[in-house]
Amino acid sequence: MIVRKAEVFREKQGINVLTGHPVHHIDPAGQTVSGTTLAGEPFEASFDKLLIATGAAPLIPDIPGANLPAVMTVKTLEDGRRVKRFINENPVRRVVIIGMGYIAMEMCETLRRLDLAVAMVKPNPQFLPWLEESLAAVVKEHLVSHGVGVYTGHAMQKIEETDGGLKVSGPELGLPGDMVLLAIGITPNSHLAADAGLELGVRKAIAVDRGLRTSCDNIYAAGDCADAYHVVTGEKTWIPLALRANRAGWAVADNVCGKDVRLDGVSGTSVFRVLELEVARTGLNAAEARQSGFDPVGVVISARSRAHAHPGGADIWVSILGDKQSGRLLGVQMIGREGVAHRINGPAVALHGQMTVEQFSQTDLAYAPPFGPTWDPMLVAANQLIKKL
Amino acid sequence: MIVRKAEVFREKQGINVLTGHPVHHIDPAGQTVSGTTLAGEPFEASFDKLLIATGAAPLIPDIPGANLPAVMTVKTLEDGRRVKRFINENPVRRVVIIGMGYIAMEMCETLRRLDLAVAMVKPNPQFLPWLEESLAAVVKEHLVSHGVGVYTGHAMQKIEETDGGLKVSGPELGLPGDMVLLAIGITPNSHLAADAGLELGVRKAIAVDRGLRTSCDNIYAAGDCADAYHVVTGEKTWIPLALRANRAGWAVADNVCGKDVRLDGVSGTSVFRVLELEVARTGLNAAEARQSGFDPVGVVISARSRAHAHPGGADIWVSILGDKQSGRLLGVQMIGREGVAHRINGPAVALHGQMTVEQFSQTDLAYAPPFGPTWDPMLVAANQLIKKL
Repeated sequence: MIVRKAEVFREKQGINVLTGHPVHHIDPAGQTVSGTTLAGEPFEASFDKLLIATGAAPLIPDIPGANLPAVMTVKTLEDGRRVKRFINENPVRRVVIIGMGYIAMEMCETLRRLDLAVAMVKPNPQFLPWLEESLAAVVKEHLVSHGVGVYTGHAMQKIEETDGGLKVSGPELGLPGDMVLLAIGITPNSHLAADAGLELGVRKAIAVDRGLRTSCDNIYAAGDCADAYHVVTGEKTWIPLALRANRAGWAVADNVCGKDVRLDGVSGTSVFRVLELEVARTGLNAAEARQSGFDPVGVVISARSRAHAHPGGADIWVSILGDKQSGRLLGVQMIGREGVAHRINGPAVALHGQMTVEQFSQTDLAYAPPFGPTWDPMLVAANQLIKKL
Repeated sequence: MIVRKAEVFREKQGINVLTGHPVHHIDPAGQTVSGTTLAGEPFEASFDKLLIATGAAPLIPDIPGANLPAVMTVKTLEDGRRVKRFINENPVRRVVIIGMGYIAMEMCETLRRLDLAVAMVKPNPQFLPWLEESLAAVVKEHLVSHGVGVYTGHAMQKIEETDGGLKVSGPELGLPGDMVLLAIGITPNSHLAADAGLELGVRKAIAVDRGLRTSCDNIYAAGDCADAYHVVTGEKTWIPLALRANRAGWAVADNVCGKDVRLDGVSGTSVFRVLELEVARTGLNAAEARQSGFDPVGVVISARSRAHAHPGGADIWVSILGDKQSGRLLGVQMIGREGVAHRINGPAVALHGQMTVEQFSQTDLAYAPPFGPTWDPMLVAANQLIKKL
C-alpha cells in the first residue's frame, strides 16, 4: 500500500519509483529483475541488493459468485475506498462477512457503527479458535448480544444475485445481504521468490534470517511476504502484522547501507476492538505451546479494570499460560471493554525477556484507582498460575 | 487502614485482632511487645515471629495554624471521610493544598470535579521535580489552564482564621481558602523499630532483605514502613506504594509459614491522573541515574495516542533514559490524556528484565488503530535514544 505518490519518492528522496512495472522474474545469479510494463514494454533492471516486499494477498474462497461486483475484499487502501464508495452509493443495509479473523472483526465494528446489519459466517465450528475457549465464548456472546449474526460451522458454497440483493448459501444456511465481504485470511505473495529458487518457510512465506536476508545473500525480504522468528519458541512463524512489517523494512534499509541490524523476532502480540470489546493476545496459546514441545499449564481469571472503590470500570478476563517444565511464561490473552489493549504489552515485553511466570508475577506494575486494582488482573492471574506450575 | 472490622478477623479467620492496643515497645531478645491499652491497661504479648506493619504518616508542616479544624491531611480512610464530611457540612468553595505530590494531585482532581477552586503551593521552585522538565511543564500548564492555582517556590509560614475562612501566607503570597489540605509527603512509622534497635535504611524506613526480614531474624517489616531493593540500581530505596506494600504483606505471610519467598524489588512504577491527564513513570530519572553511578542519556518525543487515520486520540509525551556505558534502559516517563497508565507497564517489565534500550526497542507491542500508531510512542522514543547511546 503506497500512500505517498511516486513523485514524492522521486523528487524528495531521490528514489526512482517505477509504478506500473510488474516484475515477473527475479534472476538471483544475474542480479536482475524483469517484467513487462502495464503499457506492454518489456523491462529489466539490475541490482546489487534486492528487497522483496510483495506483501500478502487476501485468500478468495473458491465458490461461484466470489467475483460479483458487490463482493469485496479488504486488504489495500483502494479496497477500503471501494467498500466505502459502495456503501455510499447503494442502499446497503445488510452485510455478510465470510471469515472471522481480525479484518472480519474490525469490519464488523465499523459496519455496526454505520448501523448496518452484519452476519459473519465460516466453516470452522470454533469461533476465534486461537483464543482460550471461555474468552472466545465471551466475545461471541458480546457480538450476538449486539445484534451480529455469528454462524460458525457453516461452509458457504455460493453467492448469488437475487431480486433483493445477494444471497450467500451453504447446505444448511442461507444469508441475505446487500454486500459481501471476503475476509477468510491472507497468504504471502511469495510466488516470485519461489520461482527464483529462494527458500520458503512457514505458510509459504519467504524464509529470512534475523538480518532479513533470504536464502540468497544479496536478496532481502520484508513485510507480510516474509517469515520471522518467534521469541518464545525460537522457531519460525508467519504472523503478518504492521509493526513487524514496518520494522523489517527499516532493518533492511540499515543492512543494505552496511549496518548489521538483527531483529530478535516477534512475540505474536496483537489486539483488535470489536463493538467496544478489546481482544488482545501475546505469545502462544495452549495448542501452539504443545506443538512447540512445551508442557503448558494455564489459568483464566476475571477481574475489574479499575479499583473496586472507583466508579465505572468493566470486567477483564485474563488467560495466562506457563510451561510446567521451565516455569517460563508462554502467553497471555485478555478481553474486556477497557484497559486491555495496552495491558498486553507488559507480558509481551516479558516474553521478549524470556521471563518465568514467577518473575513476571513480581513486576512492579503501575497502580492508581482509575486504571486498575492494586494487583493488576495480569498479576492476579500470574499468582494463581504459579500455584499450578 | 483496616477496612474490615476486627470481629471478622477474629471469627472468620481465627486472628486475635487487638484494636486499641498501641504498642510502645518491642523487645527482640525477649520476643515480646508491650504497651498500654486505650483504656489505660498495660499489656504484653510474646511472639515467635513478629511483623511490623506500621505504615507511614503524613508530614505536617511546622507552621502555626497547621492544627486548625479546617486544616486536614489525607492518608487514612478516616482522613478521607473527614474531608468529605467537611465539604458537605460547610460552604467550601476554595481549597488550598500545601504540597504537590501524588496525593496533592489526586485531591486536586477530585476537588475540581466537585467544582471547587483549588490552589496548590510549595517551597520548591520546581513543579514535579522528579519528572523530566519539559513533561513537567506540560502538566503544569494543563493544571493552570484548568483554573488551578499553581504556586511553586513559596514557603508558607502560617495558616490563620479570617472572617471569610482561612488564609495561608508566606513572605510574598497569601492564599485564601475555606479548607486547607496538607500533602507535603509522608514518612515511615519506624520509631518503634528504631527504638528496638532494628536497622533503618533509606529515608529512615525499616531495612528489610528480599525475604522482608529486618536486621533481627524473627522480625519482619512490610508496607510503607519498610524499604525495598530497586531492580535498576540494585540499591535500597523507599517508594511507599500500594502494590509493593500489599505484595510484601503476602510474602511475609508465606515466609512466616515456612516458605522462602523473596521479592526482586521495585522498579518505581507509578501513575496518577490529574484533570484527565495521565502521568506515569517507571525506573530512574536522570538525577537518580547519575546518583547511582549511571551515565544517563535521554530523549523526549511527542506522538499521538492513536493511529493517524483514527479519529480522536491525544498527544503523548515520552521521556526515555538509557545508560551510555551499558546501553541499559534506565527509565521511562510519560504523560497524555489517554493510553499512558497501562503503556508504562511495558518498560516497567523491561526494567525487571534488565533489558537494554536496544532490546526494548525490538519488542513486539500491540498495534491497532484505536490504540496507537504502528510504532508505539515508546518504541519511537527508544529508536531515537539508540542513536544517542
